[in-house]
Amino acid sequence: MPQLQHLAPTLSRLYPWTTSPMIVSAPMRGMSGPALAVAVSRAGGLGFVNNAIQDVAADLEQASSLISSSALKTTPSPHLPIGVGFLLWADDLDTAVDAIQKYKPCAVWLYAPPNGQADLDTWSRGIRAASPGTQIWIQIGTLSEARSILKSAEKPDVVVVQGAEAGGHGRAKDAMGLISLLPEVADAMAGSQIPLFAAGGIADGRGAAAALCLGASGVVMGTRFLAASETRIARGYQQEVVRAEDGAVGTTKTLLYNHLRGTFGWPEEYMPRTVINRSWVEHLAGKGFEELKVLHDEAAKQGDQAWGPEGRLATYAGASIGLVHEVKDAESIVREVREQVLERFASMGGQ
Amino acid sequence: MPQLQHLAPTLSRLYPWTTSPMIVSAPMRGMSGPALAVAVSRAGGLGFVNNAIQDVAADLEQASSLISSSALKTTPSPHLPIGVGFLLWADDLDTAVDAIQKYKPCAVWLYAPPNGQADLDTWSRGIRAASPGTQIWIQIGTLSEARSILKSAEKPDVVVVQGAEAGGHGRAKDAMGLISLLPEVADAMAGSQIPLFAAGGIADGRGAAAALCLGASGVVMGTRFLAASETRIARGYQQEVVRAEDGAVGTTKTLLYNHLRGTFGWPEEYMPRTVINRSWVEHLAGKGFEELKVLHDEAAKQGDQAWGPEGRLATYAGASIGLVHEVKDAESIVREVREQVLERFASMGGQ
Repeated sequence: MPQLQHLAPTLSRLYPWTTSPMIVSAPMRGMSGPALAVAVSRAGGLGFVNNAIQDVAADLEQASSLISSSALKTTPSPHLPIGVGFLLWADDLDTAVDAIQKYKPCAVWLYAPPNGQADLDTWSRGIRAASPGTQIWIQIGTLSEARSILKSAEKPDVVVVQGAEAGGHGRAKDAMGLISLLPEVADAMAGSQIPLFAAGGIADGRGAAAALCLGASGVVMGTRFLAASETRIARGYQQEVVRAEDGAVGTTKTLLYNHLRGTFGWPEEYMPRTVINRSWVEHLAGKGFEELKVLHDEAAKQGDQAWGPEGRLATYAGASIGLVHEVKDAESIVREVREQVLERFASMGGQ
Repeated sequence: MPQLQHLAPTLSRLYPWTTSPMIVSAPMRGMSGPALAVAVSRAGGLGFVNNAIQDVAADLEQASSLISSSALKTTPSPHLPIGVGFLLWADDLDTAVDAIQKYKPCAVWLYAPPNGQADLDTWSRGIRAASPGTQIWIQIGTLSEARSILKSAEKPDVVVVQGAEAGGHGRAKDAMGLISLLPEVADAMAGSQIPLFAAGGIADGRGAAAALCLGASGVVMGTRFLAASETRIARGYQQEVVRAEDGAVGTTKTLLYNHLRGTFGWPEEYMPRTVINRSWVEHLAGKGFEELKVLHDEAAKQGDQAWGPEGRLATYAGASIGLVHEVKDAESIVREVREQVLERFASMGGQ
């Protein structure tokens, strides 16, 4: 087995405010705003913002302002101690580059290219030219994507390996659980010296410690941060994440909710995991899309009641929903998970 | 988070020849014979035999004989230092009880009841009456099965939690990856003091260490032992396990191979994962079952060529196939995985 990647000293050099093991808040479109990202970085993790492309600059401006007024130490990095995520099928590279050049986030997270590695290469070149030192993170979910990266001349600085348990959009048909996927990707990429971060299904120190054992250098959580007090999320959505359990039957992967909310255009390789509710139950029972759409749009006017078992709105979340029991501030989440990991390893060392 | 279950001192008392972390070879029907089971136990693990019900007594007789001639220390346990697995939908309880009473295996592994917890209770009572001290292991794959166990008066001694990545038969529609499933089951069962063993997708020390972090007291491997020299498996099948990779696309879950080989009767909750080959590819391309069956039966006469990408026979295996690269003796596998786990925890403790 290769050397433990999480010990890669590059991480503490590139992200000097972070504490090992490095905890990252996933870029969740719309929901990962400046307050969440900055709180995660302030706790010694790395937060990513993610928003519609026309709103990215405003998010970075606000994050920049929050960082200036915080005690966040970024020395010696001249970059913002937060990252920003892009969906390559939906976002415009020029607009992205303008924002990156102006705000110099420490990392950019690239996902869902409509044309595979070629798009990833184009974006990586554009970003690196505009902001040298901004690190390129690429999210993959398959061994074959890892191999494409290895063949490319534009290697990323970090590869995020997302398992089938993830919430929101993941691989549609070729997703696999992290416990098998991550070690196989780690073996394939062992010679590259690119640190791997694990994403999908991790919501506490147990999953985080497991991911590090599997070969990750750091850990990404999404669903856990849906229940952070700083997250840009409706209270009804957040409460449903806290309530829901048993991801195997409490969530499903489907395009139904994308279509109900008018989201079209994701490349066919991707499909989101969501907590199920009336829209899904009635879809399975045979109700047609048009009728479901009317009911969905009516529900959307009901505020927080639009989510929950009797609700109808998209509730993208991962299979780890059963591990999230309360809303906490992001700093507490990061610190607790990190402490749980360290406790776990300390007790394991004695066996 | 609850106390680390793997430290449960009961395990070393009940299985005194084992070394922590406890590595178990899964009961794989037909393939898990006496030579494999005894080799695993001799290496400080716990081996399970598994065979058609009419052949169980012969397997236990042979295992018993192998154990007598080995240096395997079972004191103070009066039981055989191997276990035996049963498929409740297929096997006859009276025949099972006769064999258990005669050979007194240390553990019995119960799986796939046609009538859920009621069957598990009946079998547990029958086995305990016939052989007090034989430990009852029950394999589950869902949170709801865990809750049924908690409500039952016949609690098992060990619960094996099988994730979606597993080979052979697992849950059909409500399977979930271990990284999310195991911690949630562990939380639900925390008060029961029943040790959990993790199964599914684990093939080396990385997965084993991860499983312990997630809350397991011990680790079960199946696919890794398909490539053990003692396993009762055709060489063509074994070589295909060694060759195959990328479980997300190299394997699939389907009943096709069960039906091609004439296996019917599994409860509908279960479906096996298998390495894909011509039968699957041509099924997807639209070839009818009758034609596939003829081709399958012809292929079955070709010996070892009947497996592999151009083969047609069932090649049940887990999503961890990409982590299995060579055939080794079972003792080496057990010792290596255990050492990898300890090394991993030793290096993690220093972070």
